[in-house]
Amino acid sequence: MTLPTRTERFAAQAAALGFPIDSEIRIGGHYRSVARHGDTVYVSGQIPRINDTVVVTGRVGAGTSLEQAQHAAKVCAMRALALLQQELGSLDHIRQLLRMTVYVQCAEDFTHHSEVADGASHLLHHILGDAGLATRTSVGVYQLPKNASVELDLIACSSI
Amino acid sequence: MTLPTRTERFAAQAAALGFPIDSEIRIGGHYRSVARHGDTVYVSGQIPRINDTVVVTGRVGAGTSLEQAQHAAKVCAMRALALLQQELGSLDHIRQLLRMTVYVQCAEDFTHHSEVADGASHLLHHILGDAGLATRTSVGVYQLPKNASVELDLIACSSI
Amino acid sequence: MTLPTRTERFAAQAAALGFPIDSEIRIGGHYRSVARHGDTVYVSGQIPRINDTVVVTGRVGAGTSLEQAQHAAKVCAMRALALLQQELGSLDHIRQLLRMTVYVQCAEDFTHHSEVADGASHLLHHILGDAGLATRTSVGVYQLPKNASVELDLIACSSI
Repeated sequence: MTLPTRTERFAAQAAALGFPIDSEIRIGGHYRSVARHGDTVYVSGQIPRINDTVVVTGRVGAGTSLEQAQHAAKVCAMRALALLQQELGSLDHIRQLLRMTVYVQCAEDFTHHSEVADGASHLLHHILGDAGLATRTSVGVYQLPKNASVELDLIACSSI
Repeated sequence: MTLPTRTERFAAQAAALGFPIDSEIRIGGHYRSVARHGDTVYVSGQIPRINDTVVVTGRVGAGTSLEQAQHAAKVCAMRALALLQQELGSLDHIRQLLRMTVYVQCAEDFTHHSEVADGASHLLHHILGDAGLATRTSVGVYQLPKNASVELDLIACSSI
Repeated sequence: MTLPTRTERFAAQAAALGFPIDSEIRIGGHYRSVARHGDTVYVSGQIPRINDTVVVTGRVGAGTSLEQAQHAAKVCAMRALALLQQELGSLDHIRQLLRMTVYVQCAEDFTHHSEVADGASHLLHHILGDAGLATRTSVGVYQLPKNASVELDLIACSSI
């Protein structure tokens, strides 16, 4: 018996979240989804979009629940992983996640931003193992693009 | 006939925006405008200040329009370029923009942060070509220094 | 007579702020306090926590004063230094702070985010000298984890 690979764990999470693993993630403007500088890899801010739909919108703590926000954070993290896989050819080429910043569109008195970010952190650790443990900053913002409840970006280092 | 250089395109944009290309950008506190680490260059958060005036203030989507916010983003980007030029000696020494984070002081229901950031992205692409395509994160914040409508920071890599 | 070392200045600030210099800073979730990539060191977002208490909470400019927020920024900066010391073995191994982002939980019309960040910048410059001068971005957010008034994160480069 062999342990599941990163690719297999990613596929299992994708199935659980309704996330299409083979979809190419397109962007609209004059920017990049991913930029590489040596073995440092920057990933643009991701909102919880699946195909053309932002699947979790609204203000967390006022209409949108903590659980929904954690789900949003997972979808954002899956998108970031999909971009890294597309760029590097394989999730196995992620040597270490270095930095994750998690922005939560929240209510005035909502203070569980870390718990929202945990949704992403748990998923990244589950799929990547210790390589998925990044430094993290979680903050509560006033709004996000397309009324998304969560946005996150990453800096990683690659083994290629 | 030769194509305009980065310096010429920068000068043309500066003229269009009323941005003084020869002004030295000073800062007040105990921090730096630019920090270099090998060929990685960090640029401090820029607000749309021209000389001593913040030229676009207020809440985008409530008193300040999308068009004004895009103008603000352009001025922020020009300031970042001016700092890179000052630090590196020439815009030609910018090898690649790696990361741009765009903060928009916005109304509760304003969701076009990406369109605001496009103001900066288009300008950077226009002046730098493909080297101006960075990864990007755009978020809506509650306030910004001096009531600025937009703030942006950059990480770049240099060829020197 | 010899000048005080970084360690001595850190200890003096810790005493002044009631910050226990020997406390290990623990984190809860699936992430890291510090991540190293070559000589680049990322530090997770720090709130003004001393032991198990967030010592400055609430909205700056509405119930929480600028002075309290500056105090919060200092405590955040002390935590970041404590983590760097723990990771690198000594504050003397900090070659340069590269980037600091300061998030301020603020009132709708509060615009002195730079002055809040100055609390951290002054302390870092005082303890580290020129190595403490980072690039900086200061923004006003809607909420922060545990109702903290300030959160800050850092990127540094080490000499080891």
